[in-house]
Amino acid sequence: MDTVKTESFLRISAALLLVLTACLVGFDSQTKLLFYSIVRKATFRDMNALIVLVWVDSVAAGYNLLHLLFKSSLCSSWFKGKNIPMVSHPYMAWFCFFLDQATVYVVFAANSAAMEASFLAVTGSSIFQWMKVCNRFTRFCVQIGGALLCGLVASVLLTAISFLSAFSLFRLYSPNQFLVLKSR
Amino acid sequence: MDTVKTESFLRISAALLLVLTACLVGFDSQTKLLFYSIVRKATFRDMNALIVLVWVDSVAAGYNLLHLLFKSSLCSSWFKGKNIPMVSHPYMAWFCFFLDQATVYVVFAANSAAMEASFLAVTGSSIFQWMKVCNRFTRFCVQIGGALLCGLVASVLLTAISFLSAFSLFRLYSPNQFLVLKSR
Repeated sequence: MDTVKTESFLRISAALLLVLTACLVGFDSQTKLLFYSIVRKATFRDMNALIVLVWVDSVAAGYNLLHLLFKSSLCSSWFKGKNIPMVSHPYMAWFCFFLDQATVYVVFAANSAAMEASFLAVTGSSIFQWMKVCNRFTRFCVQIGGALLCGLVASVLLTAISFLSAFSLFRLYSPNQFLVLKSR
Repeated sequence: MDTVKTESFLRISAALLLVLTACLVGFDSQTKLLFYSIVRKATFRDMNALIVLVWVDSVAAGYNLLHLLFKSSLCSSWFKGKNIPMVSHPYMAWFCFFLDQATVYVVFAANSAAMEASFLAVTGSSIFQWMKVCNRFTRFCVQIGGALLCGLVASVLLTAISFLSAFSLFRLYSPNQFLVLKSR
């Protein structure tokens, strides 16, 4: 099993799903006639959580594609381990590891927040006298639901990438001494 | 630097902060006289996201304390690596690793969702005609804000624990072959 190929496959899939999520949310809109002559158009700009989700997912997709482009020269040449001396760029490997971890946590947080906001839009809140939004803009809400599902799958893929990234970094260290690189 | 001591310290701190968060949210309440004679009491049960947060944080705190109690017999005896043969319980180590990862992601998601819901309670939404809640129950909302801050710090500590857990597991593997345990 080739770690580099698996990682590339995961990164491309995650980036595609993130772009799909951002597009599904960003291009979703529904116009509806409410009472007599008031026309309301629902877009993702009605809810802060969805705006944040579109931005975060776009940046995360961009990061994963950039990582793939630069990986041969920066991070992963170091991970192959056989031809290139291991201790050449330890800081760079740690940098990539932290970027991967930050990406997965930020995407995960944005997705959870958007899910909670959408949940409130579906159910409303009788105690707060917040009315339901989705019974009027049903098609809009179904598309957002699909996008959030895509975002969830993307988060799972990003988690797998972060595991692989941690594995690639930590396997280089000695099992007995703390933070000492393994003997070559 | 002793990994086992660091991990114990992190787990105890995280568990304390999680318990503090759950208590701050769970025991928060404010009674207020609204219009003439209508009395309203605000508690965490008014919002689903806060109920979920209390449960998730309590379970996560319990898990971390149980992990500490059983660690000598189950997981971490394997991690010390010197006296005990390394390959004795690889499945158990992977099991602990996945439990740690699941904990940090679930706590993180619950915290993000509660933050988003609280944000909506503070700002309201003029487009959805959702009115602000926190201008009437200010003291209640300030306490929830403090609790969410505690929860955020706890999430950061849990992230550190998950890094340490990944480090302890993956350092045992060979740097050249995929998923092959290092020669002892």
